Amino acid sequence: CCSSSDCLESVTLWHRWLSLQYAKVKIQAKRWKALVSTRTERGGMKFHTEYLTFNTRKHREYIHITPQVEEALRKSGVQEGMVLISAMHITAGVYVNDNESGLIRDIDKWLEELAPFREDYQHHQTGESNGDSHLKSLLVHHQVIVPVTAGKLDLGPWQRVFYAEFDGQRRKRLIIKVMGE
Amino acid sequence: CCSSSDCLESVTLWHRWLSLQYAKVKIQAKRWKALVSTRTERGGMKFHTEYLTFNTRKHREYIHITPQVEEALRKSGVQEGMVLISAMHITAGVYVNDNESGLIRDIDKWLEELAPFREDYQHHQTGESNGDSHLKSLLVHHQVIVPVTAGKLDLGPWQRVFYAEFDGQRRKRLIIKVMGE
Amino acid sequence: CCSSSDCLESVTLWHRWLSLQYAKVKIQAKRWKALVSTRTERGGMKFHTEYLTFNTRKHREYIHITPQVEEALRKSGVQEGMVLISAMHITAGVYVNDNESGLIRDIDKWLEELAPFREDYQHHQTGESNGDSHLKSLLVHHQVIVPVTAGKLDLGPWQRVFYAEFDGQRRKRLIIKVMGE
Repeated sequence: CCSSSDCLESVTLWHRWLSLQYAKVKIQAKRWKALVSTRTERGGMKFHTEYLTFNTRKHREYIHITPQVEEALRKSGVQEGMVLISAMHITAGVYVNDNESGLIRDIDKWLEELAPFREDYQHHQTGESNGDSHLKSLLVHHQVIVPVTAGKLDLGPWQRVFYAEFDGQRRKRLIIKVMGE
Repeated sequence: CCSSSDCLESVTLWHRWLSLQYAKVKIQAKRWKALVSTRTERGGMKFHTEYLTFNTRKHREYIHITPQVEEALRKSGVQEGMVLISAMHITAGVYVNDNESGLIRDIDKWLEELAPFREDYQHHQTGESNGDSHLKSLLVHHQVIVPVTAGKLDLGPWQRVFYAEFDGQRRKRLIIKVMGE
Repeated sequence: CCSSSDCLESVTLWHRWLSLQYAKVKIQAKRWKALVSTRTERGGMKFHTEYLTFNTRKHREYIHITPQVEEALRKSGVQEGMVLISAMHITAGVYVNDNESGLIRDIDKWLEELAPFREDYQHHQTGESNGDSHLKSLLVHHQVIVPVTAGKLDLGPWQRVFYAEFDGQRRKRLIIKVMGE
């Protein structure tokens, strides 16, 4: 039953069948790989990190940064999770409160009453003169966490995020870290 | 070897064998699917969000909410992670401290000393009269994070979560967000 | 065709074939298991929890703990995420600020001015005498979150983590919880 041409045909068919099987296995493998990578994207957490830089004109300043936080959240694609907003300096604060200019002046005056500038802070023996800025930073706290629900900052109707500069007129940084799925 | 009835039987057997193989593949696929979905549940993060609503009788009030936080944690099924508890208003706070009535009165008196009611806050030019409530909120801070270990709030022996109302007698909200595995 | 020895050989071969198939299945299963556990490690979140214990010599003390936080982060293997550092007592604080001895004395003096020791706290009717320690804890706040980026604490150049003891000379605990991937 085996002429030379038959044999050739048979071998060719055999090769075709083999390469077909091989292709199938490769497709299968690709599918699994795709499933795995998709899962990693779905199941895994996303981490998006941004740094804002400030260089205020005045020594003390209060800067509304909710839009920047919203933009970082949008870029991250996170639907559920939270945003950490944290000053990277020890003479600045981050807080959540009203975006109302009168209240901001009240806050500034109140902070100066509770943590006033003084000549005689021991910290000033290092050559610094910003002892009060450190105390104001402690009082206001240097960070907040904003929850993220359904892809939005889950803030109350009047809650806005502020960067509080207590020793400005130089380059200062803040980190926004979005974490979630 | 091939009578008509034999052939029929052979084809039938062939079909049976084929459908058996097909069924096997389907079972296999189901098993994998089950494994995959189980894994997604195990490996993925859980996010559970609840909102508490308060409408206090008094202008200032301190409400113990550890049981509500524990209940939210229980519902979430999270074993490892954290709970963010955050006031959604700018005249309220959330803190962790002792559930002792004398201390709570001390805290209230102390907050009124450090951030007293005053007629002359600039914020009051908007028609509001709650400037001090905003300052008290900043002082106490509006949120805490409670760590979760082995399915329990990982608090010290005397740590309890409190909602601090500084401008009550109206509807206020708080978010509890459990995040973890 | 079936002598007794042939039959034995046939059965032996059959057994060998069966055990070979069984071994193959086991290897397959092992491989999948390995893949699954590897994936859980990669895709899943890591949670690493440590507790520090303090027993200070003085009533009030400020202890630099950044090295301990860095060590916990190293052990966790987390590359992206955050570290929660939270006092487990209601008369202690955790803050981020400068590791400068003069400033630390300023902070201590300032806290005593804003939340002074007094005989007449209502909390003292319980037999305690640490009312001021609770208020100092509220003022400083009892916890911070340090972001983790590329396997490092993402702190600014002068930011250091401190445990603030306001009622020491006894055993107190603090939790470090690293969460991330």
